[in-house]
Amino acid sequence: MEFSSKLLENAVYEMSQLPGIGKRTALRLVLHLLKQPKEQTARLANALTNLKDNIKFCKSCHNISDVEVCEICSNPRRDESLVCVVEDIRDVMAIENTGQFLGLYHVLGGKISPMEGVGPQDLTIYSLVDKAKQGKIKELIFALSSTMEGDTTNFYIYRQLEGLGIKTSTIARGIAVGDELEYADEVTLGRSILNRIPFENSLKV
Amino acid sequence: MEFSSKLLENAVYEMSQLPGIGKRTALRLVLHLLKQPKEQTARLANALTNLKDNIKFCKSCHNISDVEVCEICSNPRRDESLVCVVEDIRDVMAIENTGQFLGLYHVLGGKISPMEGVGPQDLTIYSLVDKAKQGKIKELIFALSSTMEGDTTNFYIYRQLEGLGIKTSTIARGIAVGDELEYADEVTLGRSILNRIPFENSLKV
Ligand SMILES: [Zn+2]
Ligand SMILES: [Zn+2]
Repeated sequence: MEFSSKLLENAVYEMSQLPGIGKRTALRLVLHLLKQPKEQTARLANALTNLKDNIKFCKSCHNISDVEVCEICSNPRRDESLVCVVEDIRDVMAIENTGQFLGLYHVLGGKISPMEGVGPQDLTIYSLVDKAKQGKIKELIFALSSTMEGDTTNFYIYRQLEGLGIKTSTIARGIAVGDELEYADEVTLGRSILNRIPFENSLKV
Repeated sequence: MEFSSKLLENAVYEMSQLPGIGKRTALRLVLHLLKQPKEQTARLANALTNLKDNIKFCKSCHNISDVEVCEICSNPRRDESLVCVVEDIRDVMAIENTGQFLGLYHVLGGKISPMEGVGPQDLTIYSLVDKAKQGKIKELIFALSSTMEGDTTNFYIYRQLEGLGIKTSTIARGIAVGDELEYADEVTLGRSILNRIPFENSLKV
């Protein structure tokens, strides 16, 4: 693409760095912004910068939060003995949406993936193990997507918890193998939490 | 969608104001930015703000340009007697890409559309008519997409130029009716400019 303006080229380039946004789509988005009032671009730029500069993570569950301890973790009506392990905030939002789960979450921030160079130390696994050792957790529900990376991560955590007497389970596979949690319908996802099975039973032996 | 963070919610909202970007895609894009170094978000925000604050349009052809008169208009080897009328910068880029056109452009900035409240005064039509009256233009090529709005716009301009002795043509319809110029392959688009037909011949009478 030959641009008549460096300013335009630069804006299109930065926009096309976003995943799934090619050069043509980026150009379309940038030209759209150019047609809108200046305030819209300012609001977008400020919202992104502001989030990136001021983002906080709950120091207990590691979910994105504007306060030190998130609303879920600090809610006295939630059962702190039951913890659901998820990959990111989208999974928390999806499960909260079902209204079926009244425990707490632990947000890993990803999955163990040797291919992508993501090891246990890049996730919040040790923080989870620390919490587990404090003795308040009675049951851990694994709700990672059922990919190889998800299975590896589940198993790694499972091994770390051995001897602590914590019950482990995975959400029931009402959800098709390989599907992302966030795209599951609420009924299926809600049921799969109610019908969770002991983690040992889910191991492919 | 229930967000655990106002900062996140705000960033997702602003991102989802872009055309074709739903709430879920917006969340995915924002979470991606959160995983990247802070500089990437800063570069995107700056590039957009900088473009919007400092954008200039060529005072002759109205294309986006970093200088007063764009490189095409100020190129002495281009034929100023031949002017191609296009909707926006994407069409200029598409036609330049063919290497088949050595005249100048006139960027309208849109098409006449009573449905969307876009009239001739919202486009650069009067600037084109002024240029035409200066007597340098011998031929005008209409290269708007062949939609009802495109045809209306062509015809409006055609009427404004009556009596000036300017030859008008439309690009040959090697391009499927209704298709956008920017998606046409280079060969077809190049040929459709070479094989342009007198505008009168293109009127559906
Ligand atoms: Zn929390
Ligand atoms: Zn120009």
